[in-house]
Amino acid sequence: MSKVEFKQLSPADFFYRNRELAGFDTPTKSLYTAFREILENSLDGAEIGGINPDIFIVIKKKSEDVYTIFISDNGIGIPGKKVPNALAKLLFGGKYVERQSRGHFGLGASMTVLYSQITTNLPTRVLSCTRGSDEIDEYHLMINIQRNEPIIRYHAKLPNKKKWHGVTVEVNIEGDYGRAHPKILEYIKATAMVAPYANITFIDAYGTLYKFNKVIDEVPKLGEPVLPHPRGVDTEKMLRLLRVARQRSMNKFLQNNFQRIGEITAKNFLKFVDIKPDKDPQKLEHDEIVRIVQGMNSFEDFLSPETKCLSPIGENVLTKGIMKELEPDFVTAITRRPQAYSGHPFVIEIAFAYGGKTIERSSEPNLFRFANRIPLLYDQYADVSAKVIRTFNWRMYKVPDNAQLAIITHVASTKVPYRTAGKESISDREEIEREVRLAMQVCARKLRVYLSRIDREHRQAIRTSIFEKYVPYIARFATRLSGKKTIPSTDFVVGGGEAKTEDQKVNSGVK
Amino acid sequence: MSKVEFKQLSPADFFYRNRELAGFDTPTKSLYTAFREILENSLDGAEIGGINPDIFIVIKKKSEDVYTIFISDNGIGIPGKKVPNALAKLLFGGKYVERQSRGHFGLGASMTVLYSQITTNLPTRVLSCTRGSDEIDEYHLMINIQRNEPIIRYHAKLPNKKKWHGVTVEVNIEGDYGRAHPKILEYIKATAMVAPYANITFIDAYGTLYKFNKVIDEVPKLGEPVLPHPRGVDTEKMLRLLRVARQRSMNKFLQNNFQRIGEITAKNFLKFVDIKPDKDPQKLEHDEIVRIVQGMNSFEDFLSPETKCLSPIGENVLTKGIMKELEPDFVTAITRRPQAYSGHPFVIEIAFAYGGKTIERSSEPNLFRFANRIPLLYDQYADVSAKVIRTFNWRMYKVPDNAQLAIITHVASTKVPYRTAGKESISDREEIEREVRLAMQVCARKLRVYLSRIDREHRQAIRTSIFEKYVPYIARFATRLSGKKTIPSTDFVVGGGEAKTEDQKVNSGVK
Repeated sequence: MSKVEFKQLSPADFFYRNRELAGFDTPTKSLYTAFREILENSLDGAEIGGINPDIFIVIKKKSEDVYTIFISDNGIGIPGKKVPNALAKLLFGGKYVERQSRGHFGLGASMTVLYSQITTNLPTRVLSCTRGSDEIDEYHLMINIQRNEPIIRYHAKLPNKKKWHGVTVEVNIEGDYGRAHPKILEYIKATAMVAPYANITFIDAYGTLYKFNKVIDEVPKLGEPVLPHPRGVDTEKMLRLLRVARQRSMNKFLQNNFQRIGEITAKNFLKFVDIKPDKDPQKLEHDEIVRIVQGMNSFEDFLSPETKCLSPIGENVLTKGIMKELEPDFVTAITRRPQAYSGHPFVIEIAFAYGGKTIERSSEPNLFRFANRIPLLYDQYADVSAKVIRTFNWRMYKVPDNAQLAIITHVASTKVPYRTAGKESISDREEIEREVRLAMQVCARKLRVYLSRIDREHRQAIRTSIFEKYVPYIARFATRLSGKKTIPSTDFVVGGGEAKTEDQKVNSGVK
Repeated sequence: MSKVEFKQLSPADFFYRNRELAGFDTPTKSLYTAFREILENSLDGAEIGGINPDIFIVIKKKSEDVYTIFISDNGIGIPGKKVPNALAKLLFGGKYVERQSRGHFGLGASMTVLYSQITTNLPTRVLSCTRGSDEIDEYHLMINIQRNEPIIRYHAKLPNKKKWHGVTVEVNIEGDYGRAHPKILEYIKATAMVAPYANITFIDAYGTLYKFNKVIDEVPKLGEPVLPHPRGVDTEKMLRLLRVARQRSMNKFLQNNFQRIGEITAKNFLKFVDIKPDKDPQKLEHDEIVRIVQGMNSFEDFLSPETKCLSPIGENVLTKGIMKELEPDFVTAITRRPQAYSGHPFVIEIAFAYGGKTIERSSEPNLFRFANRIPLLYDQYADVSAKVIRTFNWRMYKVPDNAQLAIITHVASTKVPYRTAGKESISDREEIEREVRLAMQVCARKLRVYLSRIDREHRQAIRTSIFEKYVPYIARFATRLSGKKTIPSTDFVVGGGEAKTEDQKVNSGVK
């Protein structure tokens, strides 16, 4: 009764047992997660090569409760030999550098293969071809879950006659398509909103074809990999850097391994933590390492993290995407200046869209959340944006109670603080919450100006309609009173608008 | 620019990079998480041996922003040889069986050691001794993060003169104690609420001593490990069972490897999926395995999962714990009958506590959430209980708008559907949401009866106070009117309460 057996799990076994942590919980959510993980990789695969994504998605019913997801992209492709590990080994990934990208857990694709296998016992079919290659690699993959190793059921090389490059994945998933369908469609629409430079074709399981065509050509520039910022470095990272360091002095070591440390900053910092500039990095004592790491987190003269690793959507692209997908009467977007939390740079982008025919009237704003260009559709309540909206002073900005308002939020960061590996909501880190609030205030002020204008125009229109009604009578009576015979034209009040000067009125009336 | 480097991460490296997924994000939260992970293991360690937990916790400031957490228990201890892996290797655990326990990710303790190491570069000190052993093992442990292997900095065996058994952990964590303190205290208080059979002594970093003494002796019976229920089995689990199966027929295989399958159910089920009862399990075709697994999820004649693996708190213990910690005027608790989601059994327990001096008056009920006896203090918005409360018809139960109401919810399950590995909120699985709502309705009905009684008593009291005011005058006037001289006593109305009959009044008045 009180004996306990101990056991080691492989990462695959851990996530097999705790798959809800990666977004695979209910049959609905699992189908949706599988779909989005593959699509996100496809978008990344194209953008990393500066290619306008051209993505083809088909979902088909295979048998009762089993659906085939087929996604083909025109990205840079995965080299043939690396395909099995990249897709059928957990925590194996190509994204472990300091720059912004959609996925970063090394989990999504392999969890999809794993989930397919445990629900249907079928392998996942993958085609891959890099740019300029003559051969396409085809694999049928499964995972040895207990060992976290790929199982190759089939491998062949096909001639690449059409000069294709990219990745095609065909995976069978047990799921509830009826319920997943609205989320999948919402996800594609939202993606089209922030990626108006991509073509996406989607044929759903009911046979309906959806086409989202690009309205701009410019593919966003990817963030560049950067050195770590000293703020946010921990002893583990410091030890790893020291282990491979070739510099003979701390002065040089700091300048070569961190961003934002030049000669002067290095000197000042080393003085701050009481280490000699020519100290050999390999001869640091335990206490000194800890002092340096703690000093890096408290030293106040480092510049903010570099931001070339970030790739915000931009006010222009965001506005165009929103106009295309939501067709509002009014839109305003802001890209804030980069900030940082715990050494990770981030940028907040917010847009407000108001009125038009597709935005629903609602007591709460319609919130569209994005993180590193990924739409977040679940767990809205837990998100920092929802928290800011809940506590925002809408009255101050004269936003009516039941408004046709859509709010679009985008958090771009080398490390988005997701609450879960399922990437559904962003935690309310102080720095992020503050930026979201400030950005919303900017948008809300612009919305207030717009609403005031609309309101003024509306009142003007009412006034004008009264003029329109009475002016002809006044003109007739005035004519009669003055003894004249020709009644002057009163057309000038029709169509109203800005109040005209008396002179103009007279002029118009006289001509 | 478009080249991608691939790399494999160890589980330790994965969680080092994504530590927020395990509850280690801000300095405040990290200190809190470290504390609770050790405490939870201590409680488990005692309860698994049927021992009344006697736990001693000290948190001390070590240096600027670094705190030492010291927790010692009287549990069954970890065998000396297993200590390094149990505490300094991720995903290595003793809890991978089908029964309810606090921890189940094999992550908590080793993540604490890892976080301590990356923030302070110090090893974690562990003492352990099993029951009846003469020697205590002392270890100073760190983790080789890139390899996910324990590093033993020091190991010694000490004589066990005082016949102690249990585990003692002393770990140094960089954190913000000022902010973590209220959460830590709240966590201990909440634990005392659902574990009134435990003694907990806590000395905080300011030197204040808190003692939570047990009010009952009975230690809850732990759930017993059980065979898997057929509902919720996937092909991976089925293949693993088949791989080690010794039975020569499917009929026997099903009966011996699953709960709730006897001879008749096995026969009916095999007919349902069209497999011969004497089919050799080792000779199943791919299609047949898939058919069996899908059949297990759709066959409707399995009994609900066994529940002896569960260990609810119980209405009695819950009521006593709440009376002890919240001292309300009214408390009602319900333990619902076990239900299941995807083959995992669960029990919902809800208690309402009303009035008294410690429960705060608030526009929303004060919610105390528990899962497998663990208090959940973060991410309340994302929790299924908060969702039910938001959408609950409080008016129907005559609960005033600004009530002194506390709601205690407990989800006990072999697999609590947490949203994150940080174990902070429970997802709104349909079956769980329904049970929470039903249980709240039962409690709300009882609260309504209580509130009606209070209301009646209140009105009665007002009536009585009017009587008290006027009866002496009436008595005096009546005496005068009747010409008598002695005014009868009117004391009987003082202290009011239930209306008395006229007879009694007359009797009282006359004597």
